[in-house]
Amino acid sequence: MKMHRNPIRKIWSEGGGVINGWLSIPSPFCAEIMASCGYDSVTIDTQHGAIGYDAMVGMLQALRASGVAPMVRAPWLEPGAIMKTLDAGAWGVICPMVNSRADAERLVSYVRYPPHGCRSFGPTRANFALGGDYAAVADEEVLCFAMIETAEAMNNLEEIVQTPGLDGVYVGPADLTLGLTGRRYRTGFDRDEPEMLEAIHRIRTTAHTAGIRMGLHNGSASYAAKALSWGCDLVTISNDVRLLAQAAQESVAEARRLIAPDHSPTEGAGVLQQTSQASY
Amino acid sequence: MKMHRNPIRKIWSEGGGVINGWLSIPSPFCAEIMASCGYDSVTIDTQHGAIGYDAMVGMLQALRASGVAPMVRAPWLEPGAIMKTLDAGAWGVICPMVNSRADAERLVSYVRYPPHGCRSFGPTRANFALGGDYAAVADEEVLCFAMIETAEAMNNLEEIVQTPGLDGVYVGPADLTLGLTGRRYRTGFDRDEPEMLEAIHRIRTTAHTAGIRMGLHNGSASYAAKALSWGCDLVTISNDVRLLAQAAQESVAEARRLIAPDHSPTEGAGVLQQTSQASY
Amino acid sequence: MKMHRNPIRKIWSEGGGVINGWLSIPSPFCAEIMASCGYDSVTIDTQHGAIGYDAMVGMLQALRASGVAPMVRAPWLEPGAIMKTLDAGAWGVICPMVNSRADAERLVSYVRYPPHGCRSFGPTRANFALGGDYAAVADEEVLCFAMIETAEAMNNLEEIVQTPGLDGVYVGPADLTLGLTGRRYRTGFDRDEPEMLEAIHRIRTTAHTAGIRMGLHNGSASYAAKALSWGCDLVTISNDVRLLAQAAQESVAEARRLIAPDHSPTEGAGVLQQTSQASY
Amino acid sequence: MKMHRNPIRKIWSEGGGVINGWLSIPSPFCAEIMASCGYDSVTIDTQHGAIGYDAMVGMLQALRASGVAPMVRAPWLEPGAIMKTLDAGAWGVICPMVNSRADAERLVSYVRYPPHGCRSFGPTRANFALGGDYAAVADEEVLCFAMIETAEAMNNLEEIVQTPGLDGVYVGPADLTLGLTGRRYRTGFDRDEPEMLEAIHRIRTTAHTAGIRMGLHNGSASYAAKALSWGCDLVTISNDVRLLAQAAQESVAEARRLIAPDHSPTEGAGVLQQTSQASY
Amino acid sequence: MKMHRNPIRKIWSEGGGVINGWLSIPSPFCAEIMASCGYDSVTIDTQHGAIGYDAMVGMLQALRASGVAPMVRAPWLEPGAIMKTLDAGAWGVICPMVNSRADAERLVSYVRYPPHGCRSFGPTRANFALGGDYAAVADEEVLCFAMIETAEAMNNLEEIVQTPGLDGVYVGPADLTLGLTGRRYRTGFDRDEPEMLEAIHRIRTTAHTAGIRMGLHNGSASYAAKALSWGCDLVTISNDVRLLAQAAQESVAEARRLIAPDHSPTEGAGVLQQTSQASY
Amino acid sequence: MKMHRNPIRKIWSEGGGVINGWLSIPSPFCAEIMASCGYDSVTIDTQHGAIGYDAMVGMLQALRASGVAPMVRAPWLEPGAIMKTLDAGAWGVICPMVNSRADAERLVSYVRYPPHGCRSFGPTRANFALGGDYAAVADEEVLCFAMIETAEAMNNLEEIVQTPGLDGVYVGPADLTLGLTGRRYRTGFDRDEPEMLEAIHRIRTTAHTAGIRMGLHNGSASYAAKALSWGCDLVTISNDVRLLAQAAQESVAEARRLIAPDHSPTEGAGVLQQTSQASY
Repeated sequence: MKMHRNPIRKIWSEGGGVINGWLSIPSPFCAEIMASCGYDSVTIDTQHGAIGYDAMVGMLQALRASGVAPMVRAPWLEPGAIMKTLDAGAWGVICPMVNSRADAERLVSYVRYPPHGCRSFGPTRANFALGGDYAAVADEEVLCFAMIETAEAMNNLEEIVQTPGLDGVYVGPADLTLGLTGRRYRTGFDRDEPEMLEAIHRIRTTAHTAGIRMGLHNGSASYAAKALSWGCDLVTISNDVRLLAQAAQESVAEARRLIAPDHSPTEGAGVLQQTSQASY
Repeated sequence: MKMHRNPIRKIWSEGGGVINGWLSIPSPFCAEIMASCGYDSVTIDTQHGAIGYDAMVGMLQALRASGVAPMVRAPWLEPGAIMKTLDAGAWGVICPMVNSRADAERLVSYVRYPPHGCRSFGPTRANFALGGDYAAVADEEVLCFAMIETAEAMNNLEEIVQTPGLDGVYVGPADLTLGLTGRRYRTGFDRDEPEMLEAIHRIRTTAHTAGIRMGLHNGSASYAAKALSWGCDLVTISNDVRLLAQAAQESVAEARRLIAPDHSPTEGAGVLQQTSQASY
Repeated sequence: MKMHRNPIRKIWSEGGGVINGWLSIPSPFCAEIMASCGYDSVTIDTQHGAIGYDAMVGMLQALRASGVAPMVRAPWLEPGAIMKTLDAGAWGVICPMVNSRADAERLVSYVRYPPHGCRSFGPTRANFALGGDYAAVADEEVLCFAMIETAEAMNNLEEIVQTPGLDGVYVGPADLTLGLTGRRYRTGFDRDEPEMLEAIHRIRTTAHTAGIRMGLHNGSASYAAKALSWGCDLVTISNDVRLLAQAAQESVAEARRLIAPDHSPTEGAGVLQQTSQASY
Repeated sequence: MKMHRNPIRKIWSEGGGVINGWLSIPSPFCAEIMASCGYDSVTIDTQHGAIGYDAMVGMLQALRASGVAPMVRAPWLEPGAIMKTLDAGAWGVICPMVNSRADAERLVSYVRYPPHGCRSFGPTRANFALGGDYAAVADEEVLCFAMIETAEAMNNLEEIVQTPGLDGVYVGPADLTLGLTGRRYRTGFDRDEPEMLEAIHRIRTTAHTAGIRMGLHNGSASYAAKALSWGCDLVTISNDVRLLAQAAQESVAEARRLIAPDHSPTEGAGVLQQTSQASY
Repeated sequence: MKMHRNPIRKIWSEGGGVINGWLSIPSPFCAEIMASCGYDSVTIDTQHGAIGYDAMVGMLQALRASGVAPMVRAPWLEPGAIMKTLDAGAWGVICPMVNSRADAERLVSYVRYPPHGCRSFGPTRANFALGGDYAAVADEEVLCFAMIETAEAMNNLEEIVQTPGLDGVYVGPADLTLGLTGRRYRTGFDRDEPEMLEAIHRIRTTAHTAGIRMGLHNGSASYAAKALSWGCDLVTISNDVRLLAQAAQESVAEARRLIAPDHSPTEGAGVLQQTSQASY
Repeated sequence: MKMHRNPIRKIWSEGGGVINGWLSIPSPFCAEIMASCGYDSVTIDTQHGAIGYDAMVGMLQALRASGVAPMVRAPWLEPGAIMKTLDAGAWGVICPMVNSRADAERLVSYVRYPPHGCRSFGPTRANFALGGDYAAVADEEVLCFAMIETAEAMNNLEEIVQTPGLDGVYVGPADLTLGLTGRRYRTGFDRDEPEMLEAIHRIRTTAHTAGIRMGLHNGSASYAAKALSWGCDLVTISNDVRLLAQAAQESVAEARRLIAPDHSPTEGAGVLQQTSQASY
């Protein structure tokens, strides 16, 4: 029987769904706090998060003790950035804007060593963080997710999901909604428009038919739970920015309500209301 | 009529109470997020927070745009640390473990320029952050808080509060409980033991009699609101570490409950339960 | 009437020209100092400046309080870097080496959301720094500048300036001189060679004919003022590195002259003389 | 039976001696590398190491995953620095220049909570790094070492070792040699002068008589092994700076010898020869 | 006679071979230590090292005083990253995965100013670190190395080495072995398989025939010395990560052996054994 | 004849006066720029500058290549901070607020090794930065300056300057004016009030009578030159913050004047006017 090193693969092999945390604040201590909160994996967002490579390294180090699987969303489909991320000790990469089979093949090639890809050899920190036998197991254990978030990607979906070496697709509902419906709807997650639900379900079933996994970014625990019930394999719930902002705003607002029941929301609180559908 | 530069003094001059946020994560972006959440002031904790001087500077810069008053809790009653903090652009300092009149006089002397104290002149960043006339107004605008948190301080309370130049006392209930009652009770905030309530009320009334302010650290919005109703002048609610940890844990726990109603709390969630009374 | 959020657009709408500062030192405090000096906007140079993404974030935070418009020069025409820069809270991007209509179209596509471009959605810090309604106004307010600095770009100038969604062109005279005249002339800014003046005027008039803006990098206040008088819409004056180096050198040289009038320039001073035409 | 949380106490309870690594480079990755090399504990040197508080936090985070006990040498006998270090998640503190019983009592008071000391309550990161029940076990588990390194300390040795709450003494042979013999001998570790050996043995036996532990800083594995055979409870071997410098120098020197057998040591190699007895 | 500014070119002009150190730890102090150990040049690895741009800048600053030539391995064949590296003050760049003549021409174009290439002008820190006349000498002094590490590159070798402006090729034996022989052999350096030796010799002779240099990455001083004897122009020996890890492990293991001769290697030591052939 | 290692002592031994630069911005690149401008020494201000220990280390590394003597102003008369500063590689320390002979003796004791003081041995980075024989020469080469800046210090001046091991006194005119005359005069440097001139002259002559040096902080090159003509041994001119701010403001103001001659100074420019006498 195979011994899983990547905690996400272990959960999947046991039939479970993965609950993923999302890090957009460039802070190792935030990463350490989030990793203590019960997630199965956490993803450092180096695309939209305020996190560059040097900040990411400290976060990966802070995550290591938790046993929670560290993943990274890459800034873009770029070989330098993706390979550096893996060498730094991520158990997987989520790549934005994979719109075609060619994109997906390039992505896989950056994640796998020859002859399966063209990843350059030098897992400098991964050797320490993910085990001294990393080189022997990397191609089997490292996860490779392609984001489906444009009309073009939807057109090429069947071809994308069949890319050899691809482990899953990941859906960013904000971009997918912009891409499929323009600006007809609000931005953000937790879609309930029929065409968006249909798109999400189509991605899931197409991925599963091809034998790969499907992940979904969610704004709330309830939507994430619903997504798991649909069969999604990995669900992200909100992110550190919004969890902190919402908790702090609610805390202040509660105090203000208690001392002055007629108090209307502060300007600060307004910021969140406006952004609550938007930021990920 | 005087034009207030320190937002806290302005709120007090208008008869209001101040709601204060608390920063223990060394992250400018966390500071920026917290400052958008409706607090009147935020305090960077360089005593128990994981924040040294170099990290604090970036946080003060990130706070500046918000208009929220930046305060700093100093690591200890040390002239070097306290003066550096003020030069970096804090509108006030909260000093831990002020246990005697002599301690309080030393504290004031570090915060005021001659002839009122021995603060050395050189407000390098304060000139930029708090106004080009900082030197002229600093002694009037900068806030100086002494923490009352030991049995010794309680014994010397009347003398402490009458220290010329002291603006207020600040109560850390965790330390005060340890100091007054040993380990009879749980650690933490939001005390309801009669002797602790009595101590808190005594500090407040003694401060007010002496014409100075009283601040209280709280674990919850509801206790903070109660403290304001008692007449406390500044109330802190929780901190960034606990707000983030609680929000993330609740979010994960909610998702797990929804997908498996019998699910018992995760190990991660347990960490918070154990620490929920303790960390500030 | 439209309410401008981007201070640069507001100045232009009122018929003014923009004076831009330039940051090449990776330091939030330098950024804060520069932002206090009277510029209308400041640009963080992540191309030639010693500034990577993680350093840039702290600088954007330090700039926020000033009300001065923060811009960023991107390292190159790369989607990952450009989108990350905007998500971090810049009101505009200046992209080097845009040499063709195709380049310009790619640039615009990275800066605008679908359907006008392919910018991925997730303005994580911009939501806090530039307003909670950022998502709604970004495509109208964010500035997109293409640098014209090669012979190829000059050949394609008419096509470039007509690229839909492009707000302006920006001229780097050092590269443009190298590109147009090889190494016949000194490197640097503030050109007075007839063919370089002709090129600069042609870029300005071509941009204005197409209804877009034209910016120019200058080494001195006097040349910048001349450029404004020509009708340039945005003029950069020197940068933090050279301003600091020149001021310090002049200060030391003045002291040495006063104490030993025959004193010849120091070795250090010589460094600046050699670089005075060259570094930006 | 008691469950040990501090790995050092566990080794001691099983009759073993502790091999300690020493970190003087401000780098989380160096910490991570060192923690993988077989040490039982590692100590971050914030006295002579080039490591301030903000750098130390990242190193503690990087050490956490290893299971190796993290200790910190404090910069001096200062309450602010020592308490901040413990709150950041160190399992013990080594304090330099403890020269009297009064010094030792102050040290213990900074490390223990009331009523055993005056440590202020707020184990912000320790709660995450060392367990959610940290507050309940800290006074029993955290290690408190006083350094004996002056003639004055030797005079007061019997009184120092009997300080309630002190866990051990730690000997820095470079300072002790300077303190006891002036500049008669070379600086550095691994002493073989009779009076120095006598001093070291006296410290060990005096500590053991008082029921506390004795640690020794060593320059080489062989001397450390000898110290363990004498009964020392904790032995440090060299540090990261010297291990790296020696390994690199030997590697270059070997290559140069192989290609030019008559080659004399380079200037770089000379640096180490001069410092080999000196730096810790 | 020409005055060499780049120390590597000077050594070559005198007929010598260059011994190069390799930096994979993001630490200016590690860089400073390594630069004191006798190397002729040191290379900051921003491909596989845990080093991003912002960390690299501090390392280049720390290297400057040593007189040792600073080089940088770029993360990938990307114009933004390569030009930023040179502007930050590197005397040369080593670019991974140059597989064709077109790749090599792109690489050269990023390193040379017009008309020899398209490097954008703005040597912001290089002006300070490498001399005020940097602009005048850069194209002659800066070194441009292409890595040969795939089967495709071997097929195109003759064309690659003749690329005008290319100074040398650099061989990464781990990747080259993967690329040429798949996974038949262990990963790592210091190859002794006949086909790998043949490949290395062919690269060297082909480079020399074309009049350019050849560098080789080695795991040990003895192999590096052998490579110099073959005529390699630049040999790298190991890196900071492995030198530190090996020295620390051997030190601990020696102590354990001395106190318990039967002691078997620790788990930590095992990490190195597994990685000893692999990491660079 | 003695070979000087500390460049300041060398200048003095040749009868020269030292021109010192002052660093208050926490930036290695600023340090590198300033060190290229012709100063004989530069001082990192960790008292009023926005610079903590971790930022200071990078600045010392960046200064090393210049050959300019690095000095540090300590945050306060604290043993931990002062010794850490020296171990990090400063050639001297300037200590604020030395008010009595006892203060001066404590200061010297922190700077000299036994038996001349109680400095703890461990010059970790100094070994690399200041020479492998640092330990042997430190007590002779390292400079120890006491700041005279209060009425109390003036009263104790004769006793202070005769403290064995003290190399000089340094005058901060802003604090000295506050201390001697209260708030009668403007804050800042370059005093021309008779009683302040008298105080400065008295300090100089008293120091020289005792055979030690005298340094003076100045706001302008002209005043610094005057101070040298009086016989001051070391003169500081302004600092990086003010040099940059003034140069940038003048540059913007010049441009605005040229395009609109009636233009009145901007708000930004006003900041400097207000602070121009004040910040150091």
